[in-house]
Amino acid sequence: MSVDSAFTPRPINPSGLWADDLFAGMEFRSSTCTVTEAAIVAFAESFDPQLYHLDAAAARGTFFDGLVASGWHTAAITMRLLVTSGVPLATGIVGAAIDLSWPSAARAGDVLHVEGRVDEIAFSRSRPSRATVVLSYKTENQAGEVRQNTQARVVAFRRPQSPDGR
Amino acid sequence: MSVDSAFTPRPINPSGLWADDLFAGMEFRSSTCTVTEAAIVAFAESFDPQLYHLDAAAARGTFFDGLVASGWHTAAITMRLLVTSGVPLATGIVGAAIDLSWPSAARAGDVLHVEGRVDEIAFSRSRPSRATVVLSYKTENQAGEVRQNTQARVVAFRRPQSPDGR
Repeated sequence: MSVDSAFTPRPINPSGLWADDLFAGMEFRSSTCTVTEAAIVAFAESFDPQLYHLDAAAARGTFFDGLVASGWHTAAITMRLLVTSGVPLATGIVGAAIDLSWPSAARAGDVLHVEGRVDEIAFSRSRPSRATVVLSYKTENQAGEVRQNTQARVVAFRRPQSPDGR
Repeated sequence: MSVDSAFTPRPINPSGLWADDLFAGMEFRSSTCTVTEAAIVAFAESFDPQLYHLDAAAARGTFFDGLVASGWHTAAITMRLLVTSGVPLATGIVGAAIDLSWPSAARAGDVLHVEGRVDEIAFSRSRPSRATVVLSYKTENQAGEVRQNTQARVVAFRRPQSPDGR
């Protein structure tokens, strides 16, 4: 990555938003994703092979008393919803730091969406093309049950000026 | 989930650790996982379809100037390493809240492992069988580059007593 203080990366979404286009209080809402038992088990087999993410019957009596999605699966679905329909940043959604909590676990049949807002846009003094954007959002099912609360610090850039300064 | 203050779930790792077995300062280190280009792209197609996670050539000049793993992929690999070789809790690794940062992005060829320690075990007053365990760990490649720093609050339980109190 360049250390040039005026560095601006090539956009991956040329029609997307730049840091200048964002404002504190700006709201967003994603499309939806339905969580299936097959998807829960497939994610768990790859990344979180614990009984309550793998086998509904065998999970009875364990902590979740049934099959639930890995929290990291919920986090990954949340990212998919943000990237594909939530926050179309020109240079991409590049996370630097995340605080998240899982007040409850997603289950098969959940239809998840993400909604949230821009909390803050802080332009860098040392690298004036660059800003840190703080986003807060929740991942919720069709019954309003919150499966994940997230606050993310992401990297954004000022809209590049054209060569003649317009 | 039971609201019984003495509730203890059935263990998913019967030979695993209970909250009583943990102590502040206890260290752990996982086995390793090699990150491949195919795995980076497959994860991105499912959960983080942004150009710099999908296509090495097309990603030149964008923020990461090449192909990198989604941070959520790194987080998911981190969980796999913890679950399979890091922290064998009897009732499973049940996350409640996570703080994480990605000081750099994982790349194809990274051989990741996780190492960390138990920061704190706080037994619940209202639910005496239950404890919140705070874990801090980092996900690092073979060159010592840190790809993720995590602090996790997880749920653990006291070892159940046998029926006759022994």
